[in-house]
Amino acid sequence: MILALAGGVGGAKLVHGFAQVLQPQALVAAVNTGDDFEHLGWHICPDLDTVMYTLAGVANPQTGWGLAGESWRFMDTLEKLGGETWFRLGDQDLATHVRRTGLLRGGATLSEVTATLCMAQGIGVRVVPMSDAPVRTMVDTDEGELPFQSYFVRRRCEPVLRGLHFAGATEASPSPAFRAALDDPGLQAIVLCPSNPYLSIDPTLALPGVRDALRSASVPVVAVSPIVGGQAIKGPAAKIMRELGKTPSALEVARHYGPLLDGFVLDHADADAARAVAALGITPLVTATVMKDAGDRAQLARELLDFVDRLARTAGAGAAA
Amino acid sequence: MILALAGGVGGAKLVHGFAQVLQPQALVAAVNTGDDFEHLGWHICPDLDTVMYTLAGVANPQTGWGLAGESWRFMDTLEKLGGETWFRLGDQDLATHVRRTGLLRGGATLSEVTATLCMAQGIGVRVVPMSDAPVRTMVDTDEGELPFQSYFVRRRCEPVLRGLHFAGATEASPSPAFRAALDDPGLQAIVLCPSNPYLSIDPTLALPGVRDALRSASVPVVAVSPIVGGQAIKGPAAKIMRELGKTPSALEVARHYGPLLDGFVLDHADADAARAVAALGITPLVTATVMKDAGDRAQLARELLDFVDRLARTAGAGAAA
Repeated sequence: MILALAGGVGGAKLVHGFAQVLQPQALVAAVNTGDDFEHLGWHICPDLDTVMYTLAGVANPQTGWGLAGESWRFMDTLEKLGGETWFRLGDQDLATHVRRTGLLRGGATLSEVTATLCMAQGIGVRVVPMSDAPVRTMVDTDEGELPFQSYFVRRRCEPVLRGLHFAGATEASPSPAFRAALDDPGLQAIVLCPSNPYLSIDPTLALPGVRDALRSASVPVVAVSPIVGGQAIKGPAAKIMRELGKTPSALEVARHYGPLLDGFVLDHADADAARAVAALGITPLVTATVMKDAGDRAQLARELLDFVDRLARTAGAGAAA
Repeated sequence: MILALAGGVGGAKLVHGFAQVLQPQALVAAVNTGDDFEHLGWHICPDLDTVMYTLAGVANPQTGWGLAGESWRFMDTLEKLGGETWFRLGDQDLATHVRRTGLLRGGATLSEVTATLCMAQGIGVRVVPMSDAPVRTMVDTDEGELPFQSYFVRRRCEPVLRGLHFAGATEASPSPAFRAALDDPGLQAIVLCPSNPYLSIDPTLALPGVRDALRSASVPVVAVSPIVGGQAIKGPAAKIMRELGKTPSALEVARHYGPLLDGFVLDHADADAARAVAALGITPLVTATVMKDAGDRAQLARELLDFVDRLARTAGAGAAA
C-alpha cells in the first residue's frame, strides 16, 4: 500500500497516476486541508476537490481548479446582486460545497463527508483529509498576515511572503485513515507528491506525530520535486522560495524535506543536481516528472513503485549487512 | 399611494400592473413571508422573489416561480452527490438566496436586504416584506403538522389540510415600510391582491395591528378574487377551501375577508355572485380579472384605481350626507 501526501494540481496528477496502476485499496491519498476556508457560508476544501475531480476525470485541465465544462450562471448573477465573486464558484462545483457543508452541519466528520463525496463520484481510491480538525494556513506578508485564500486567490500571491504558519495544526491530529495508513503493516512507501512544499505538504507535516512517523518509517519515504529547471510547474512555489531567501531549485526542495527522505525524484532538466541530493544522504532518481497526460501520470507512478522497491531492497540489504 | 398586500404569482401580476400605471413612489407592495424557510443553509423567500422577479421582467411564466431561461447545473450535480433536491433551485435563482443570506448574516434586516436586491435588479417600486421578524406558516394536515414548504412543494399539497397557523405572527410586527404605508396620509387604497387568501394574505393579516388598521382605514380596502368560476387561477386555493368545508367560489373569498372590505372584484365568470357580495355590505366590481399578459395586468390595475376612487367619493358623499 502506498500513502501519498498531496496538495492541489501536481499532487492530484501523481495520485491519479498511482490510481491507474494500483488496486484502489492499495492507495491512500492524505490531502492538505490548510487551504480550506469558509466562504459564503460554505466549507470549501480546494485541494480535496482538486484530487477528487482529477480522479473522477472531471477536473478542469486549464485552470488547475474546478470542473471541466463548468458554467458560471450563479456567479454572474451573484455579481449583479453585489455579492462577493473573487473566489470563483462554478454552478456544478457549488454542489460539492453545498453537499459537504450540509453533511458537516449534520455532524459528519470531514473524513466521512469526503468518503461520501468520493463514493458519489465513483472514486474507489481512499482520498482522505490530512485531518478532521480545522488547520488554517496563514501567510505572513509585507502587508500583514493573510488567511491563505485571501493571499492565494484574492491577492493572487502578490504580497511578498515572509513566513507561514498553520493555525490549529498543533491541536489537530491526523485523520483516522491517514493515521491508520502510517501504521499499516502493509505500507510500502510514503510519497510526498510534487505539490508546493511550503503551502501544500508542510501543513500535513505540521500535524502532531507526522514528522516523527516519516522519520522513523520502516518503509521508504520519497518526494517528487515540484520545481523543474528552477520553475514551478504550476503555482507560486518558485516565487515563495525566492521570497524566503532560497534559490528555487529541485535541490532546495530536497534540502527542505531533508532528513525525512530516503529518495528524491528530479526531472531530467535537473540531472546535474542529483549528485548534491545524494550528498544529502538521499537517493536521487532522475526521470521525466512533468505530467502532461494520464499516460505520463501512470508512467511516473510506475517508476516511483520501482524506485521505492529498490530503496526498500537496498535498505534491507544494508540492514542485513 | 396604493398599498398592495401580495403573495406569489397572482399578487405579483397585479403588483406589476400597478407598477406599470403608477409612479414608483406611489406603490408599496407588502409581501407575505409566511412561506419563507431555511433550506441548505439559505434563507429563501419564495413570495418576495416571485414579486421581485415579476417586476424585473425575469420571472418564469410557466412555473410561477423562479427565473425564465433558468439552468439547473447546480441542482443536477447536487442530486448526483446525494443532496436534497425536492426544492428546485436554479443556478441564477440561487444567487438571490446566497446574497440574501449573506446580508442577513451580516446583520441587515429582511427589509434592508430586499431593498438591496430590488435596487440591484432595477426595481423602483418599494417591495417590502410583511415583517422583518420570522413568521412561519404551519399546515395542520391529516398527516400531522407540516412546515409550509414541506406541505406545498415537497408533498405537492397532497395531504388534506385541516387548518393553518402562523408561528411567530403574534410576536412579529409589520415591517417599518409596511407600517409606514398603513399610516401614510397619502394612502389612497389598500388592495388585497388575487393571492391565496389562506396561505398568502392571512399571514399578513395575522400580524398585530394589521386587521385593525384595515378595519379602521379611512381609505377603501378592496380585494380581488383569486377564485374564478370556482377554480383557482394558480395553486391550491380551491382544494384548500374544499378541505376547510367551504365552497370554492369568489363569494366565499369575499365572506372570508368580510368586514375588512369596502370593495370586491369578481371576474365576469362570477357575475351572478355580485348581488350576494353586495348583500355582505361590500361593493362589487365585475370585470376581467384573469391576467394573461402585461397589458391585462395594467388594465386591471387601472380599473382598480377607478374603483377605489369611486368608493372613496361614495364614502365621502356618505360621510357628507
